[in-house]
Amino acid sequence: MEVYLDNSATTKPYEEVIEAVASTMSNYYGNPSSIHKLGMQAEKKLNECREVIAKAINCTRDEIIFTSGGSESNNFLIRGFVKPGGNIITTKIEHPSVLNTFKEMEKEGINVLYLDVDCNGRINLEQLENNIDKDTMLVSIMHVNNEIGYIQDIESIGNLIKKKSSRAKFHVDAVQSYGKLRIDVVKSKIDLLSASAHKIHGPRGAGFAYIRKGLVPKPLIIGGGQERTFRSGTENLPAIVGFSKASEIINKNRDKNFEKVKQLKSHFINEIENMEGVKINSPLEDEFLPYILNVSFIAVRAEVLLHLLEEKGIYVSMGSACSSKDTKDSHVLKAIGLKDVELKGTIRFSFSELNTLEEIDYTIENLEKSLKFLRRVAK
Amino acid sequence: MEVYLDNSATTKPYEEVIEAVASTMSNYYGNPSSIHKLGMQAEKKLNECREVIAKAINCTRDEIIFTSGGSESNNFLIRGFVKPGGNIITTKIEHPSVLNTFKEMEKEGINVLYLDVDCNGRINLEQLENNIDKDTMLVSIMHVNNEIGYIQDIESIGNLIKKKSSRAKFHVDAVQSYGKLRIDVVKSKIDLLSASAHKIHGPRGAGFAYIRKGLVPKPLIIGGGQERTFRSGTENLPAIVGFSKASEIINKNRDKNFEKVKQLKSHFINEIENMEGVKINSPLEDEFLPYILNVSFIAVRAEVLLHLLEEKGIYVSMGSACSSKDTKDSHVLKAIGLKDVELKGTIRFSFSELNTLEEIDYTIENLEKSLKFLRRVAK
Repeated sequence: MEVYLDNSATTKPYEEVIEAVASTMSNYYGNPSSIHKLGMQAEKKLNECREVIAKAINCTRDEIIFTSGGSESNNFLIRGFVKPGGNIITTKIEHPSVLNTFKEMEKEGINVLYLDVDCNGRINLEQLENNIDKDTMLVSIMHVNNEIGYIQDIESIGNLIKKKSSRAKFHVDAVQSYGKLRIDVVKSKIDLLSASAHKIHGPRGAGFAYIRKGLVPKPLIIGGGQERTFRSGTENLPAIVGFSKASEIINKNRDKNFEKVKQLKSHFINEIENMEGVKINSPLEDEFLPYILNVSFIAVRAEVLLHLLEEKGIYVSMGSACSSKDTKDSHVLKAIGLKDVELKGTIRFSFSELNTLEEIDYTIENLEKSLKFLRRVAK
Repeated sequence: MEVYLDNSATTKPYEEVIEAVASTMSNYYGNPSSIHKLGMQAEKKLNECREVIAKAINCTRDEIIFTSGGSESNNFLIRGFVKPGGNIITTKIEHPSVLNTFKEMEKEGINVLYLDVDCNGRINLEQLENNIDKDTMLVSIMHVNNEIGYIQDIESIGNLIKKKSSRAKFHVDAVQSYGKLRIDVVKSKIDLLSASAHKIHGPRGAGFAYIRKGLVPKPLIIGGGQERTFRSGTENLPAIVGFSKASEIINKNRDKNFEKVKQLKSHFINEIENMEGVKINSPLEDEFLPYILNVSFIAVRAEVLLHLLEEKGIYVSMGSACSSKDTKDSHVLKAIGLKDVELKGTIRFSFSELNTLEEIDYTIENLEKSLKFLRRVAK
């Protein structure tokens, strides 16, 4: 049996997505910038996709800029709106494409405040409120954390930011939540938002950046002036059509998927929570996304456990898979206060609606065997 | 009949490329950064592709960084190696992704010298030589111009640069030449080179940046540390596999394609050069790439001619298709000294080896009819 439980790293594309990509490559090969018929057809298709994405987050078509993915969107939106002299507020548990961009900007003289999080991963709204002032240029807070699945209350955060300052822009990295949770940029007063296709069974190589009407970013990629001059480079129409297709499918089934995945996670937790030396870092509570189950197996080396599971065809990740080759300890697990002995043994199981209860049972069975083996060896 | 003569804007992907992309989406959906088997398989595939590309330009695998396309590669390589205080030398006829990046950098206080070109598009080697000094940080010169197809002598240029300064880095935008001309980065002493997949019947959304061993760029996209930390973001493996497949096919047939396309261009020129009011801006000489035929139809509005041809199923472009919606006059045609009456009537026919002589005859026939009609109307 093959059980893919690394869906927060990347997902298997839907069949319909693969077909959409292939058919767009064949049938819409014109360059949207060309003014002849093939170009116009490609451009029309591009804007249909923009419409699909815009509807999903309650914005207008003109507020969506397509990019090559989540990392580009984060880099673009942050670099695009930060000028020397202003201040930035973010959290200690952002994705490396946000965090490392800010670390770089600090070297360039930008002030960045990294908000603490509690043992769940929640930011302190009071700390946020106390630190927003007239020099705050940008507040960047991820919707769902990619390692532990904690869901920040972006609606309260958005309202708080706008209450304190009309100048501070609110950026949300929604790479892990888009297609899984409802996102309403108006209701949550979001100015800038990033998302990625390949986390929702779409193709790799496509993402979007939402930019609220009236805001003008500095482009990250300059050139022919595509995407309203905000993102140059020939548009990757096949991947964008695939992204749009994946968005349609996943957003239509969002509630149903959510319930299914919640059942998988609930079952998983029920079976393992009473095992010795197990610490659940993403419990079955409303504040955690059911798609992510982060577990510390105390005094176990995560990498060894990962490879034992792999031998059985079960694919999981340790720490954050987006940078899983990094040997440094996870900044997220440290921020929520995990002890070293817990941290080193942490595995992330990340689900999709394509997983089954049977797969979870198979995983638990092999997990138990592997742990028994490892603990025996350790003695 | 449908005749696609806008191949310098983008090409129709090879069937084998579409299959490779679709099959990679199905079979290699793991994230190369994941340390389990599916991740390792994806990473292995990624490095096989890197090997294919590296061989094609005579460099090593580690010198190839994959990007989302030519514009990103140009932005990345330029921004990645330019620091405040140094000088840059480029030409007046670069692609907008190079030129507009430099225009932006000028605002940031960087000195940029834009070399003149003669009526063909050739730079003056003496002007280049006289302007390289110890503060020259980067010389960026495109291999083949995308509008007129002029081929710069990059081997002489590379040798000249290195003779004058060991510190000046040589960047070549090879988007229009990769797969069409032989490129040897060692022989031409190239430090940095950009290319794109969709110009050679590969997928959109993939490009590469060659960076000579030992050189360390500042990344454009920061994050999880993919591509040796130089380009973060989950690798777009399906598009990269498609790029590699297209590279294999086109490089294997490079000489044969070249001869075929040369025959198409030669035939085209023979048929139109004696027509009244026709000025060939890219003659059939060795210094011009046969894939591009740029013609001024004097006192004709290019856009009107383009749409008349389009009605017959013939797709061409006016000015540079990469930014063809830009209503400004082409900077390239101005740099080679075209008069206004020539400039406004300029059409680019750009071929691929998939075009046929029959298609060219059909195009010429309809071109003649359209011109006759336009000139009659104008009287």
